[in-house]
Amino acid sequence: MARLTEDQLISRFFAPLATHPGARGLTDDAATLSVPPGEHLVVTTDALVADIHFLADDDPDLIARKALRVNLSDLAAKGARPHAYTLCLALPPGWREDWLQRFAEGLAVDGKEFAFALLGGDTVKTTGPLTIAVNAFGLVPSDRIPRRDGAQPGDILYVSGSIGDGALGLLARRGADGLAGLAEVERDYLARRYLLPQPRIKLAPGVLAHASASMDISDGLVGDLAKLLRASGASADLERDDVPLSSAARAACRLDATLLETALTGGDDYEILCAVPPSRRVAFEAAAQHGGVQVSPIGTVTSGNHAPRWLDGEGNEVPFARGSFSHF
Amino acid sequence: MARLTEDQLISRFFAPLATHPGARGLTDDAATLSVPPGEHLVVTTDALVADIHFLADDDPDLIARKALRVNLSDLAAKGARPHAYTLCLALPPGWREDWLQRFAEGLAVDGKEFAFALLGGDTVKTTGPLTIAVNAFGLVPSDRIPRRDGAQPGDILYVSGSIGDGALGLLARRGADGLAGLAEVERDYLARRYLLPQPRIKLAPGVLAHASASMDISDGLVGDLAKLLRASGASADLERDDVPLSSAARAACRLDATLLETALTGGDDYEILCAVPPSRRVAFEAAAQHGGVQVSPIGTVTSGNHAPRWLDGEGNEVPFARGSFSHF
Repeated sequence: MARLTEDQLISRFFAPLATHPGARGLTDDAATLSVPPGEHLVVTTDALVADIHFLADDDPDLIARKALRVNLSDLAAKGARPHAYTLCLALPPGWREDWLQRFAEGLAVDGKEFAFALLGGDTVKTTGPLTIAVNAFGLVPSDRIPRRDGAQPGDILYVSGSIGDGALGLLARRGADGLAGLAEVERDYLARRYLLPQPRIKLAPGVLAHASASMDISDGLVGDLAKLLRASGASADLERDDVPLSSAARAACRLDATLLETALTGGDDYEILCAVPPSRRVAFEAAAQHGGVQVSPIGTVTSGNHAPRWLDGEGNEVPFARGSFSHF
Repeated sequence: MARLTEDQLISRFFAPLATHPGARGLTDDAATLSVPPGEHLVVTTDALVADIHFLADDDPDLIARKALRVNLSDLAAKGARPHAYTLCLALPPGWREDWLQRFAEGLAVDGKEFAFALLGGDTVKTTGPLTIAVNAFGLVPSDRIPRRDGAQPGDILYVSGSIGDGALGLLARRGADGLAGLAEVERDYLARRYLLPQPRIKLAPGVLAHASASMDISDGLVGDLAKLLRASGASADLERDDVPLSSAARAACRLDATLLETALTGGDDYEILCAVPPSRRVAFEAAAQHGGVQVSPIGTVTSGNHAPRWLDGEGNEVPFARGSFSHF
């Protein structure tokens, strides 16, 4: 099969996605981006490599959307609204046009859903695995965005959505024994949560207005929480049983109690973890409700540099064998 | 050897480079970037893959600098001054700390030379070759930057620096027969031009003020010129012998006359090609001289959609066997 040139590939698959006026239809060497007066740009970048961050034979539509969503999740955690992105794509030998067509369709679907336009990019070939690097640009109406290091003793710690679905979903996709007893609909739910995380963009205004600290949970709740507290020079008391689990994750943990640790320490949540001063509690919860995003209080920030204390329903401390998940 | 974690690697090698205030020392999920009133952001991204865009055993200092410079070259061609960049780095199995140390030193050297600060990034592992994706951000005091498509009949076509050194340098590094008769100092010069292109940042103000169209030459002068003219709906008459060659490139062409075509059609120049209206000629040349960048007129834009005509010293048309170089 005759291969498309890079220019043909760009004009066929990517130019239709470049709806940002500064992208110039991807016909130039660079794009322009004008930031409205009073607004600031939030910039984040995440790269994904086949068979490390996704499986090479995953649906290309879902690979594309996950590549955008892990970046959108970082924007949401900083209170930003999505604006535009650039895409560097390293294609392995034997890439196919129908694969790329489907990949571009995934970018189009989420670009539309999140008002997130392609601004520019580069397409190269590689002798290695498919590699995707996305640079995401968001806008905020303030130069003070919630950092990791702003949590204060007394703040309430919240997480969005449900925790652990991504880590259990990866296990389900690998056919782990512990999940064999799960109903197919539950396995599918968990696998889908791994494949297609839900960036909490609709929580961004509440985070920006009310959170003293915020980050997205990508390397497991337990480890990421420890990072946020370490950066803030604080500790916390957490109620393990207050961590929100989906009904599928609860069913998995009933089958195999050790999976609860996987849920709390595994990666791929892409939920928001934030600290909210008690005086802002009502307003934060109202903002979350307004955005249709469930938020759950899981504990309280305390003073001191000791490791955060996780307590079970009877007030006993829960040890975690492993801290943080790392793709690296 | 115990491997550094991703966080350790970032704090040791990359945090010292993150001098941009919005980078927050790389301790957060995202960076902020404020664009001064009246300024606009120019965004470009280029990815490099080992053994496609550089050789895996090249000096890591030079690999790092080339990764920045190919992006800086795009900024220069759009008239922008460098501001900041993000870096996605996919490290192959067996990466070494001393390699990374040297790579970071290269980023530091060029970051300082070009006032180009690290803003953020991501480090991942890959089972494939080293892959580097840089997103570069420049600033311009206007929302009208020179595009590819603005060349008008009568405009003078200029190139910066000298053409073909990069392509001949790659041949020299591969030990090509045709270059065996070259003096070692000339081979080294050409190889160095391949390894370390010179982004023409100091020509940016002149390009912004005076060029009707501009692009950086990365895929060979002949092919990139054809792209600029096609985008502009124009053609051109070019004098082949007016194309500026370095003395090393001239020596190579004397040894093997077929190398002239390599010089004019090969990639890796990273010089600027621009069109300047005759009324701006004096001012453009003065701006170039002020920046210390040599610019050479090589022809004139003409009307019509036919392929540009390259003429030799006797006025005969020169055919080129191959149009544009492609790394893809």
